[in-house]
Amino acid sequence: MINSELNQYAALYQTELLDNVIPFWTEYSVDKIFGGYFTCLTREGNVFDTDKFVWLQGRQVWMFAMLYNNVEKKKTWLDIALNGADFLKKYGRDEEGNWYFSLTREGIPLIQAYNIFSDCFAAMAFGELYKATGSEEFKQIAVSTYYQILERQEHPKGIYDKSVPGTRPLINFALPMILCNLSLSLEDVLGSQTTAKIVPELISNIMTNFYQEDTGLILENVSREGKFVDSFEGRLISPGHVNESMWFLMDLAVRYNDQSLIEQAEKTLLRNTEFGWDKKYGGIFYFLDYKGYPPQQLEWDQKLWWVHLETMIAMAKCYKLTGNQSCSNWFEELHQYSWKHFKDPEYNEWFGYLDRRGDPLLTLKGGKWKGSFHVPRAMYEIWKTLSSPSPLQKDSATLSNSRNKL
Amino acid sequence: MINSELNQYAALYQTELLDNVIPFWTEYSVDKIFGGYFTCLTREGNVFDTDKFVWLQGRQVWMFAMLYNNVEKKKTWLDIALNGADFLKKYGRDEEGNWYFSLTREGIPLIQAYNIFSDCFAAMAFGELYKATGSEEFKQIAVSTYYQILERQEHPKGIYDKSVPGTRPLINFALPMILCNLSLSLEDVLGSQTTAKIVPELISNIMTNFYQEDTGLILENVSREGKFVDSFEGRLISPGHVNESMWFLMDLAVRYNDQSLIEQAEKTLLRNTEFGWDKKYGGIFYFLDYKGYPPQQLEWDQKLWWVHLETMIAMAKCYKLTGNQSCSNWFEELHQYSWKHFKDPEYNEWFGYLDRRGDPLLTLKGGKWKGSFHVPRAMYEIWKTLSSPSPLQKDSATLSNSRNKL
Repeated sequence: MINSELNQYAALYQTELLDNVIPFWTEYSVDKIFGGYFTCLTREGNVFDTDKFVWLQGRQVWMFAMLYNNVEKKKTWLDIALNGADFLKKYGRDEEGNWYFSLTREGIPLIQAYNIFSDCFAAMAFGELYKATGSEEFKQIAVSTYYQILERQEHPKGIYDKSVPGTRPLINFALPMILCNLSLSLEDVLGSQTTAKIVPELISNIMTNFYQEDTGLILENVSREGKFVDSFEGRLISPGHVNESMWFLMDLAVRYNDQSLIEQAEKTLLRNTEFGWDKKYGGIFYFLDYKGYPPQQLEWDQKLWWVHLETMIAMAKCYKLTGNQSCSNWFEELHQYSWKHFKDPEYNEWFGYLDRRGDPLLTLKGGKWKGSFHVPRAMYEIWKTLSSPSPLQKDSATLSNSRNKL
Repeated sequence: MINSELNQYAALYQTELLDNVIPFWTEYSVDKIFGGYFTCLTREGNVFDTDKFVWLQGRQVWMFAMLYNNVEKKKTWLDIALNGADFLKKYGRDEEGNWYFSLTREGIPLIQAYNIFSDCFAAMAFGELYKATGSEEFKQIAVSTYYQILERQEHPKGIYDKSVPGTRPLINFALPMILCNLSLSLEDVLGSQTTAKIVPELISNIMTNFYQEDTGLILENVSREGKFVDSFEGRLISPGHVNESMWFLMDLAVRYNDQSLIEQAEKTLLRNTEFGWDKKYGGIFYFLDYKGYPPQQLEWDQKLWWVHLETMIAMAKCYKLTGNQSCSNWFEELHQYSWKHFKDPEYNEWFGYLDRRGDPLLTLKGGKWKGSFHVPRAMYEIWKTLSSPSPLQKDSATLSNSRNKL
């Protein structure tokens, strides 16, 4: 891509974020009576279910606080973030301070705190809102939640874990992956010395245990020794997760000046995207089996918005860091695919769930798992990445193989 | 359908059962080293995963014992049933006598006894095998498991239930539905007085609580008072479950001579099939939302083998009981659809999972949820139903509205 193309893309994503996507959530998602957000929204923006899912409540707080911090000090945005934070603060936690999975519209707990990602997105939310407000209370919620996540990380599901201890212990990719992003995002709150201690272990976990040297792929579940385990869970690959984590790693590589990590992320991103791409109908599969067997997930062949958007962020960042033309080509291919299939030509916001052929499987704009997060975050990240005046890697000479120094 | 057509269909399903489907499981599923069955089998019959899922182990024991009891006293069939029963007896239960969800190939427990349907299919298996062998041990396992199910039925997931008590208590359709079939199947073992006490409550639960008078549909989850609850779970309809339960109810109606129940089942079966039918591509949807909103299940639009086969059984039985031409028409439409899309033209056994358009989504013949059960049971039930010399309702004059007398 030449500079004028980069600028055009940047402007397009900026406009899509500010004139299309954010207005959708501003207009339709705020619950002005009970606080928090509606996320189950039809194509047009009508509320079809009022339950409140803590993942999505936290993510939307983070989103609006982040826009307030990084784009413009709009009071509306801060108010929307505070509306969600207030609801979460009042109703979101059980007696032990763990975050519920879901609440009724009024805030009565529905589903117990079995899902540690509720805690991850709550910590992310309150950390970002602390930056916006300076509120010590928000900082304290972010910090205590973060440390509770670290304490729970060996047994994230706690008493709700249905596997028999010892028979086939597996570790899952999602938590270390999210912690890479969360730890960097909370660096101001936790202190840079703390994150500098935690982050290298997370990176090493991903690139040593989950990364498979012989195939260049990353598995969703491995043994505690980082070995492939031939079972449904062990064979599972989630190309979207892998690519999302690769831009988290690239952000960390830039932060810690680690050229070697950039190269690993670049290689893994390209290998995994090639592996996950549907050669017949285009788009990236949701799930694949490492050995090519039938996955247990019936939704395996569907095309999900976040998978494609996270890959685009990763390709954009990778291109700016390495200049690798393959990243630019992939970015453009994914851009074409996504604007053709995920963008709704009639109403604001994007479709989330397509069938294998790229037709909408559900026309909702938000649901139990899709909220104000992946679409606007991707618009923001792509806009900022492609419009940065020079590559993020400002002085490539200073980026050395410094991973071991982390 | 005229008599010669009925006979032709009956012969076709008999042949498919005995020459195609059963040979597949006989040849590929038996684990001669560790006992039990492999169920994860590719299109050609190769084992791609060796885990043993208790639902499917129990169902296969039942299937082969049932064939031995009702079709022919083949030693191979009894041996296959005993091979699974022996494995289950040794490894299938935890210390409290509840049945695990899954085991390793060798029988080491993998997933805890959180799923009461493991117990249902184990009880069904040992009950049927008792009929084949007269073994008091098998009878005792069936009886004790059955009573443990009844004890657990208010809280079937036990400690693994993630919902917060009291906020939105829902009861689920699957257990009373399965218990209708299981109770009748265990009548010899439990004693007819016992089942005659239990069954009317099950029927009333289904046709009063889950059945919605105003729409004629059956919901998958309702409040404890049998009311619609506007939430993802409350709006869920599973047309396959409904139709499967309708033939369970028709079997009970015949057993207890209840004309009124036949009429209710007939009406519900036709209404629900009409509701579940995909007018665009044919076939019956896997899940639908009662209010037409997006379901949370991403697999909602897929066409599953058991949904279609269970509906065919129900239509065949209903036609023989009522002579309703709509049932005959639906049977023929489903027959055409199923033989065109689910039957594998090259290898034995049938495909299980099709996309909305009717193309195979997974080409497996068996997996974590598909075993030696719905295909052979449907072949058997359709064969027997359509070849019965006169309608099952042998003397319609004796079938009166005797439900209250049950």
